[in-house]
Amino acid sequence: MTQIDRTMSLVRQAVDERISQAIAERRDGWSDAGPAADELLDAAADLLGGGKRMRAVLAAIALSATAGGARREEILSGRACAGLGAALELYQASALVHDDVIDAALTRRGLPAAHRRFTAAHRGAHRLGDAEAHGRSAAILLGDLLLSAAGSELGTALAQCPQGTRAAARAAFDAMTEEVALGQYLDVRAESLPLSDEGEDHAAAGRAMEAAALAVVRRKSARYSVMRPLLIGALLGGLPPRGQAVNLLEELGEATGIAFQLRDDELGVFGDPARTGKPAGDDLREGKRTVLIALAWQRCDAGGRALLRRVLANAQADPDGIAAAASLIEDCGARAEHEKRIDGHVERARGALEALAAAEAGVSPDAVADLSSVISLLTDRSA
Amino acid sequence: MTQIDRTMSLVRQAVDERISQAIAERRDGWSDAGPAADELLDAAADLLGGGKRMRAVLAAIALSATAGGARREEILSGRACAGLGAALELYQASALVHDDVIDAALTRRGLPAAHRRFTAAHRGAHRLGDAEAHGRSAAILLGDLLLSAAGSELGTALAQCPQGTRAAARAAFDAMTEEVALGQYLDVRAESLPLSDEGEDHAAAGRAMEAAALAVVRRKSARYSVMRPLLIGALLGGLPPRGQAVNLLEELGEATGIAFQLRDDELGVFGDPARTGKPAGDDLREGKRTVLIALAWQRCDAGGRALLRRVLANAQADPDGIAAAASLIEDCGARAEHEKRIDGHVERARGALEALAAAEAGVSPDAVADLSSVISLLTDRSA
Repeated sequence: MTQIDRTMSLVRQAVDERISQAIAERRDGWSDAGPAADELLDAAADLLGGGKRMRAVLAAIALSATAGGARREEILSGRACAGLGAALELYQASALVHDDVIDAALTRRGLPAAHRRFTAAHRGAHRLGDAEAHGRSAAILLGDLLLSAAGSELGTALAQCPQGTRAAARAAFDAMTEEVALGQYLDVRAESLPLSDEGEDHAAAGRAMEAAALAVVRRKSARYSVMRPLLIGALLGGLPPRGQAVNLLEELGEATGIAFQLRDDELGVFGDPARTGKPAGDDLREGKRTVLIALAWQRCDAGGRALLRRVLANAQADPDGIAAAASLIEDCGARAEHEKRIDGHVERARGALEALAAAEAGVSPDAVADLSSVISLLTDRSA
Repeated sequence: MTQIDRTMSLVRQAVDERISQAIAERRDGWSDAGPAADELLDAAADLLGGGKRMRAVLAAIALSATAGGARREEILSGRACAGLGAALELYQASALVHDDVIDAALTRRGLPAAHRRFTAAHRGAHRLGDAEAHGRSAAILLGDLLLSAAGSELGTALAQCPQGTRAAARAAFDAMTEEVALGQYLDVRAESLPLSDEGEDHAAAGRAMEAAALAVVRRKSARYSVMRPLLIGALLGGLPPRGQAVNLLEELGEATGIAFQLRDDELGVFGDPARTGKPAGDDLREGKRTVLIALAWQRCDAGGRALLRRVLANAQADPDGIAAAASLIEDCGARAEHEKRIDGHVERARGALEALAAAEAGVSPDAVADLSSVISLLTDRSA
């Protein structure tokens, strides 16, 4: 087993256990609420059974960053890492449940999306009122519950850590969840904006689209998926706020997070559905305004733009149209340029890691090695 | 100006100011996100411009409970009370925004409900996609943002208070928001349950309905509107967790909160629309399963049940049907019994207050006087 595999296995086990406990505690505490509490908690448990726990792993690596050897393994599998990881996973589940309502998604982690689960239960029991609306309402409330439960779990994690580290870590967590809500709104809003008309300056429109897409990537995904978990872990582990190590971890985290999301966007167009688990072209049909689309918009001709206008945000776009759009994005050079952007962000992340290793900031070689593995894992993936 | 008026005026001013600052800080911090951030923050500012700030006032009375005179006024208008009040108001706004999506409400605090505001903006700007779905999505995200911002604000309030008080206060806040999500789900779920069929034991069904309605009242409203604000304030003010004063404040708060909500449910059926600001019968049309309805279900005959079945959860119920249902609830004795229940809860609250005044728990006469006024304000109201 390589070192990162060992790290991930320790963290995942501790976090899985803590999540199960958190759910069990609520079943006990709410036993007087009848079957309703179990309906919510069953949905939460099923959703939280899946997921790669990457945010929890990142937070744990940062929380234990100054330790090595056996002491490090003790921290990785200890209560602070478990609680912080559980908080991040609960929050992620909350965001996914609301995201799926917003996107009217059918499935999540191989199961029906939460709102569809509640709709099906409503229909199955022949209840009163509109089943779809009920499913949406229940999912909104499940997401709210998970967001609050994430806050509670963070509290139990903080209780394991020195008092002086708690306020900064909590503030970083709250800032993260605020920023994701804003980022999601930026994303939803961008999908609703018209594409530039023929006659406009398309290169300029494409550059504006690119800047907007990057703002969404930063706020909705990059910071939240990588940078903030590293930051919160580092602060709780006692690294000085705004110190060199924290600054470098943030830079590493943001760059890795952007590369991760750009890779994800590329897989959304060119990925193998059998490996990504998502139907080919769904991002195009949804009208997602990615950096990749923005780069294509800057490069293609009137025919290309007409094709993109037909496919983007068109839920009925057929496989031929999707395939033609993918070819266009490849042929106009947008995909190659996009790969260069990804490489640039990965390089920036590796530069920050080198500086971190060289700095006398107390970060252990074990932590540096795990961070290096994580950069690869998050940015090289093909699914 | 009476003492409670003075208390409310001091708290409201400090909280209003802090809310404005919190919004301004986010406008600054998110200025690079373009008009999107302002769209969310404008909606938040308009919604937060309204409201009676009762939760903030309750929390401030409890936070300053052991002080008297000038020192007390200093605390009431100080930064800890302002931050805690802002956190409670932001959370309340979050719950209202999601509640309005769930109920498909048209207005809130005299303005279009948040989801309708975003729908109108989408239509006005001729954006792509479904305007109703966009409005709902934006409101879900606004609610998420407000919930997270409430957590951030609580952090700034905690920073003003002794370290030893912070964890318990934060845990009580998080427990409150979790419980409200569960309570809302209980409410949504109850509305979808079929009423008992003819041939069943209606008294038993009515008693079960009553127990379920009271569980909703407790979890969705009573604790959150009165008990938890008092508890969080008391903990932050340094009263010992699970000590006599805190226990009595909790008892006072739960009883007052239940009486407050039962009064509200009664106004929903018998209130003057000109004074309540809500159309007569809306609670009936929505199918809200209140204690009042449960009491009527236990008391009325087959004809009465048939009438209730026609009106409850029937969005098209006409004014004659609504008026007939209200008469039925009155004539079968349910309203009188309901009044008795309210009186019982108010008595329980007053009993707890007397015990608090008599206990040597350090609670000041000023605080006792304000609590007495608050019990009256929350339970005597006719609008």
